[in-house]
Amino acid sequence: MKVIRNPQKLNRILKRISCERKSIGFVPTMGALHLGHLSLIKKAAKDNEIVVVSIFVNPTQFGPKEDLKKYPRPLKKDIELCRKSGVDFVFLPDNKTIYPYGYSTFVKVEGLSDLLCGVSRPGHFRGVSTIVAKLLNIVGPDIIYLGQKDAQQAIIIKRMVRDLNFPVKIKIMPTVRLADGLALSSRNAYLTGEQRKEAAVLSRSLSLARSLVQAGACDSSRILGRMKEMIRKKRQARIDYIEIVDLENLEKIKKIDRNCLIALAVKFGNTRLIDNTIINHA
Amino acid sequence: MKVIRNPQKLNRILKRISCERKSIGFVPTMGALHLGHLSLIKKAAKDNEIVVVSIFVNPTQFGPKEDLKKYPRPLKKDIELCRKSGVDFVFLPDNKTIYPYGYSTFVKVEGLSDLLCGVSRPGHFRGVSTIVAKLLNIVGPDIIYLGQKDAQQAIIIKRMVRDLNFPVKIKIMPTVRLADGLALSSRNAYLTGEQRKEAAVLSRSLSLARSLVQAGACDSSRILGRMKEMIRKKRQARIDYIEIVDLENLEKIKKIDRNCLIALAVKFGNTRLIDNTIINHA
Repeated sequence: MKVIRNPQKLNRILKRISCERKSIGFVPTMGALHLGHLSLIKKAAKDNEIVVVSIFVNPTQFGPKEDLKKYPRPLKKDIELCRKSGVDFVFLPDNKTIYPYGYSTFVKVEGLSDLLCGVSRPGHFRGVSTIVAKLLNIVGPDIIYLGQKDAQQAIIIKRMVRDLNFPVKIKIMPTVRLADGLALSSRNAYLTGEQRKEAAVLSRSLSLARSLVQAGACDSSRILGRMKEMIRKKRQARIDYIEIVDLENLEKIKKIDRNCLIALAVKFGNTRLIDNTIINHA
Repeated sequence: MKVIRNPQKLNRILKRISCERKSIGFVPTMGALHLGHLSLIKKAAKDNEIVVVSIFVNPTQFGPKEDLKKYPRPLKKDIELCRKSGVDFVFLPDNKTIYPYGYSTFVKVEGLSDLLCGVSRPGHFRGVSTIVAKLLNIVGPDIIYLGQKDAQQAIIIKRMVRDLNFPVKIKIMPTVRLADGLALSSRNAYLTGEQRKEAAVLSRSLSLARSLVQAGACDSSRILGRMKEMIRKKRQARIDYIEIVDLENLEKIKKIDRNCLIALAVKFGNTRLIDNTIINHA
């Protein structure tokens, strides 16, 4: 496994590899790797001859009051995990390489970026689409792997890849969960003991929604009401949003009459957690 | 020469060619090809084994009151010119292929896009950077060729390519001029006889500026004053802007104490012409 910090160098090496008809799988990360990331890496290794993982805590996707500084950076451990997981190249650029003096270009997927998490995190998805565009140009992968946990991010990247004609396939892998259902996230590390226990309510509320739909419920506001009721019983939970939206354009839907996404963001203290589930309409 | 309308098909073919270590030169155009375009194509053919020309009148770079509809589209002639000039592939997509239903992704080079032509053409450069990003992803060239005539466009594309890590080199070729100095432009076709004659004043005003600088002048406002005086003598000329700006960040400079760009836009009737010159500071 090679750790490469220089984008041009990585690009040169990978272009050569790609021309040898070896398929390249790419997993972009902000580090603090957990089993969710490792499931993406595992799938990439299964599908491709070459696996590239990027580790970069991207400043442009953090708001001014968000957790950029305290975001976990267990770099040695991350690199060791990559090595053990069959990664071939770790791309590890620094801030100044990615955003050099005079940096001024941004990619924005309009509309989609301003809904759901985009409401309380303005600019977040502009930062995400910009860094992913950059990484796609540097790595030039055949397939990029993203987690369903960040559903809106995956939908936005899908749209960007289609709109800007990036020659890459996208695979979205299922959310990895702990025994009580909590979705893995690097931010779980911020939770206190009590918050950690309470946070399991998020996946339980999504399961409740699935059960209700399975039992024939289709009125979004009723389903959302039941979910909110369940979550609000937790002392520290403060709901940012819970919505039932169209899978393509992320617009709210009143009746579940097609495939849709139930997505939520809930704060426990200062820690904002997200989770979601896709409902496939029969 | 092949005319290809499907982006995926072109991408596949060119990726194969690129892997055979053949260098690909790319000239993006909106058609209505003139000797300016042909000089780019000629240079691309000299530098590369393969030359790709795109012809696409890009709607997102036209304002609502601009000349999108009447922009000249002499397609047969353009294709014939490409054939005679040694082009290997003409990329000729339609609007719906480039901007499919639900299109929502835009690339913007902030700051640079809102100066000079960006003031009277809001959104123009966002459209330009977006289409060029798309074309770079589709074509995957080694070198892209742009004309110095569109100086701001060239500077913006340079910045975008650097910022978004597009693996491509940029060559800017000199403006091609008619005998009286008028810069070639597809929009010259809109000019009446009188306007056509008057329009030669633009390059003359730039020559005047060069002479003044050569003679030791360095005060921007004095130089601009002389240029404006010259241009205003023409009955139909209405100045949009004339500015002396920094070559990198396009900010106005008061004293010519470094390399700079003198750029102007002047309307003759409804036809807006641009021209520019670079002053290399000794």
